[in-house]
Amino acid sequence: MGRRNITLTIEYCGIAYCGWQIQSNAPTVQSEMERALSELCGEEIRVTGCSRTDTGVHALEFVLNFYTSSTIPSERFPAAVNSFLPPDIVVRSAREVPEGFHARFDAKYKTYRYFFDIAPCPSAFLSGRVWSVKMPLPGKDPDRDIERSLEELNSAAACFVGTRDFSAFRAEGSNVRSTVRTVTDAKVFLVDSCVLFSSGASDRPLLCFEVRGNGFLYNMVRIMAGTLLDVYKGKLLPSEIPDIIRSKDRTRAGMTAPPDGLYLCKVEYDD
Amino acid sequence: MGRRNITLTIEYCGIAYCGWQIQSNAPTVQSEMERALSELCGEEIRVTGCSRTDTGVHALEFVLNFYTSSTIPSERFPAAVNSFLPPDIVVRSAREVPEGFHARFDAKYKTYRYFFDIAPCPSAFLSGRVWSVKMPLPGKDPDRDIERSLEELNSAAACFVGTRDFSAFRAEGSNVRSTVRTVTDAKVFLVDSCVLFSSGASDRPLLCFEVRGNGFLYNMVRIMAGTLLDVYKGKLLPSEIPDIIRSKDRTRAGMTAPPDGLYLCKVEYDD
Repeated sequence: MGRRNITLTIEYCGIAYCGWQIQSNAPTVQSEMERALSELCGEEIRVTGCSRTDTGVHALEFVLNFYTSSTIPSERFPAAVNSFLPPDIVVRSAREVPEGFHARFDAKYKTYRYFFDIAPCPSAFLSGRVWSVKMPLPGKDPDRDIERSLEELNSAAACFVGTRDFSAFRAEGSNVRSTVRTVTDAKVFLVDSCVLFSSGASDRPLLCFEVRGNGFLYNMVRIMAGTLLDVYKGKLLPSEIPDIIRSKDRTRAGMTAPPDGLYLCKVEYDD
Repeated sequence: MGRRNITLTIEYCGIAYCGWQIQSNAPTVQSEMERALSELCGEEIRVTGCSRTDTGVHALEFVLNFYTSSTIPSERFPAAVNSFLPPDIVVRSAREVPEGFHARFDAKYKTYRYFFDIAPCPSAFLSGRVWSVKMPLPGKDPDRDIERSLEELNSAAACFVGTRDFSAFRAEGSNVRSTVRTVTDAKVFLVDSCVLFSSGASDRPLLCFEVRGNGFLYNMVRIMAGTLLDVYKGKLLPSEIPDIIRSKDRTRAGMTAPPDGLYLCKVEYDD
């Protein structure tokens, strides 16, 4: 049996990690994965991730691949690798893929979610997991307010859809060949946080920004989230966003939202 | 203005704490509260909690009271105290109460919830927050299985209701005047974990055991939870539980479930 190419779908809570990519002297998800897989397979394993996530960013679905000469059946990998991993990194599934499959180059679309907690009082259970903006909706009719806010936020998010030069939404210091990316979907909706974290499920709705695209520039989703917060606060009109994009001027977009609220949710491949 | 008696309702994630009660050289919720209140009020503050929670146990609603000569209006306390607290302890509300109010002695009923994650693969986001029992329902029709399991678990939980000597559900080494307690309600139901922690809200339902009573012996809820797991596993019939209670024999009840899944949810007072 030759070397097999195995792909794993993992999830991780990024609070304890300096992001995905391996670094010397800092805990990263990649180094944990390589250590666990090397121990399990009895050989030095190097993994290729679908993406680099920053310090504190989370993943509900992150795809990686690696080559191994071990004979462990692929369906056995999740439970076996999990026994070597800390509890904040979990392998959900594994399968054997063709030799040429590459988790990063072959990824066609990625979907991210960014969660804002708008409650006036932050939750003791959501620290590091959402962006607590402590900005409840103003006014006397919270239902109507939230509806109007959602409408505005969705008008703003819709401006991100399309094939555009997103230089205005790219962090300084990053260096890529092209700053053009295609965003296929962008929307904002409310989610119940969790019956675990509140006396009633709908006590504490969270605002969620979901965006799908063929790729994202450095900090692009977090800058979009910071810009949406300006819309939520009434500091920016949705109609100003196309002009901000056209300007290619980073200083005109909103702040870079903290990593806490960002989750890589889905990675799509052809097949 | 004389010394006022103030009550606070707080929530906390217990993962980082050696329980509620102050100890030398160990982080506890009580010591964090006393430090924060003393700094805020500029005087030495001692607090009285409604209950002692163990290492790793959480609270969605925990009530305490303290006396202060500060003139801070009570409605200002939550935001002010929170600015002195770590993010895993949050003050939700505050109010002035009569001089004689005592958070522990005046508590009439407490409600706890215990969460079991039954999914075969644990969640990277629920570590320390639920008991991952990795025990999905057997059989080919998961909907029917879950219904039957819930029925059985509820028959078992119903046996806890009443005024009983709960010695069989009390940890060794505890010393109380009476081992008789009144349980008013006990039930088991499914809750969606959280859209935050799964791709879809109903991906990962959690089993929740909720119990309300006038008081609980040491580890009583966790031993009840361990006993319910035996019912879930088919190792124990609901009809055996009354006999276990009557036996007053700790060795006949189930294991003590880990603290991770336990949440103090509600404390009731007269008025």
